Amino acid sequence: MENQTPSYRDDLSSPVRVDDFALVEVEVAGICSTDLELINGYYPFTGILGHEFVGTVIDAGQHSDLLGKRVVGEINISCGKCRECKAQRKTHCLNRNVLGIHNFHGAFANRLILPLENLHIVPPSVSDRSAVLTEPLAAAVEITKQHHIDPDDQVLVVGAGRLGLLVAQVLRLTGASISVVIRRSDHEGLIHGWGVSTIWVDQVPPGYFDLVVDTTGSQDGFRLARKAVRPRGTLVVKSTYAGDLTLNMSSIVVDEINLIGSRCGPFKPALNLLEKELIDTESLITSTYPLKNALKAFEHAGKPGVLKILLEIG
Amino acid sequence: MENQTPSYRDDLSSPVRVDDFALVEVEVAGICSTDLELINGYYPFTGILGHEFVGTVIDAGQHSDLLGKRVVGEINISCGKCRECKAQRKTHCLNRNVLGIHNFHGAFANRLILPLENLHIVPPSVSDRSAVLTEPLAAAVEITKQHHIDPDDQVLVVGAGRLGLLVAQVLRLTGASISVVIRRSDHEGLIHGWGVSTIWVDQVPPGYFDLVVDTTGSQDGFRLARKAVRPRGTLVVKSTYAGDLTLNMSSIVVDEINLIGSRCGPFKPALNLLEKELIDTESLITSTYPLKNALKAFEHAGKPGVLKILLEIG
Repeated sequence: MENQTPSYRDDLSSPVRVDDFALVEVEVAGICSTDLELINGYYPFTGILGHEFVGTVIDAGQHSDLLGKRVVGEINISCGKCRECKAQRKTHCLNRNVLGIHNFHGAFANRLILPLENLHIVPPSVSDRSAVLTEPLAAAVEITKQHHIDPDDQVLVVGAGRLGLLVAQVLRLTGASISVVIRRSDHEGLIHGWGVSTIWVDQVPPGYFDLVVDTTGSQDGFRLARKAVRPRGTLVVKSTYAGDLTLNMSSIVVDEINLIGSRCGPFKPALNLLEKELIDTESLITSTYPLKNALKAFEHAGKPGVLKILLEIG
Repeated sequence: MENQTPSYRDDLSSPVRVDDFALVEVEVAGICSTDLELINGYYPFTGILGHEFVGTVIDAGQHSDLLGKRVVGEINISCGKCRECKAQRKTHCLNRNVLGIHNFHGAFANRLILPLENLHIVPPSVSDRSAVLTEPLAAAVEITKQHHIDPDDQVLVVGAGRLGLLVAQVLRLTGASISVVIRRSDHEGLIHGWGVSTIWVDQVPPGYFDLVVDTTGSQDGFRLARKAVRPRGTLVVKSTYAGDLTLNMSSIVVDEINLIGSRCGPFKPALNLLEKELIDTESLITSTYPLKNALKAFEHAGKPGVLKILLEIG
């Protein structure tokens, strides 16, 4: 059963607001690895891409208090009626559409619509360039919702990319010792500046870390993460993988590993962290393009070592 | 580095006690699926099998308070010196030997030796036939150490065998609703007698259960368990699997599944449950053989629907 949403419209350029939705003028949008994977045919989505954005509400129907407000938006459009919605797991709605990912036009456009309940007002002190990172930051914060991090933990983040560096920044706030696996020296200085250690990919000690987060979405990344976690340790899997993964499940049993899949996270704490300036977003932005140069922006985003590429739309 | 233990002796029939070890006369031992797998060459162990036992201490050196005491024993022989031992994860000792499983002679013999620290005195009211189940019962209890079970949880146990029925019995004590997947009607009445539901293997509702425990050690069992767990639910993997398992890791990420490997458990709570008569052990015992008929006992243990086969030794 598909959610009945006003997702696919004939005229891509001007979405029509419906009840309980807001019409939002997009100011800035960010390119995420998921967008690159969608372009590579990882998942059969056709439509407007983009799920990281900050914009301005230009029509909210009767909810005129939202009018003119600067907002970010949660990307799962849920039905409110299924078992998962009723159990307060709306990001797992059985009939969900997902902004720019599944059956719903996204943010790489002048305008988008989203349910009112998905919107969060951006605090005035948070710039557009920071606010646009709310969605991936929330995904990083999700880890701390799912798993209690002991400030004495030794934590390893596998993947020094867009998501990995947000994860490292969120987890360092717990006081735990954080290390990021690197393959090149590009962001070494940046990472060290946050008080986070780096480990070269071939020098990761096996079975050492209390918590390992794999942000790579690659089989090699997963294998390294698995090898690095100690017995009874926790392995958070933060990215989807193309195709199936072959796993020595017996070793997961013998070592009593706790493997946690992790996806979308809570926006409010993410916005709090941005407002309190506890996350360095500026260093994560490699470059900005106007929407008309989106193809160039995508090419740039796909290059090794490149962090966040933004599209300036509004 | 191998642990220096007095494991392999020239004369299998009379182990020699060394410092900090006790010499135990085995009274009753139990055949576990791991024993059947070892015989099938699942793991290259040569030596005396058997890791479920109850026996009597006949030599404990200076610790004469243990002399004549009826004991059960934890099966991991740890070095006490490695990183895992120092972190109080002795069952994960990096140099461990394991009674009847890895580099250490087991319980299908008249006598065995085990470190004093591994022994637990059996309360007088607990029969040998119950006490011999302490080790697998502890493995079932391990689940409640690793994961908080909400009394409102819907729990599914996949596998209605030796371990599965112990797991179902332990988990039903939380007050949660427990269902066991069955393939045949053999133990249906027994399971219902415990106030536990049964579900036929082809009638398991997908994505429904808060907690699913796979006790099968089979790919089919794992797949069924994975299908049955709800988004953000927990999947405890309680058995080792022969060979690698192919897994759709992306679905683990998207559904934010918590997958927990689970192995050996705590003996004290297991003995407490037996002493309080909260576990029905008698119904789990299919048959008893003298040690000299061990081959017949093993044949019997390998037949479908057969639960615990005991070896009477003392």
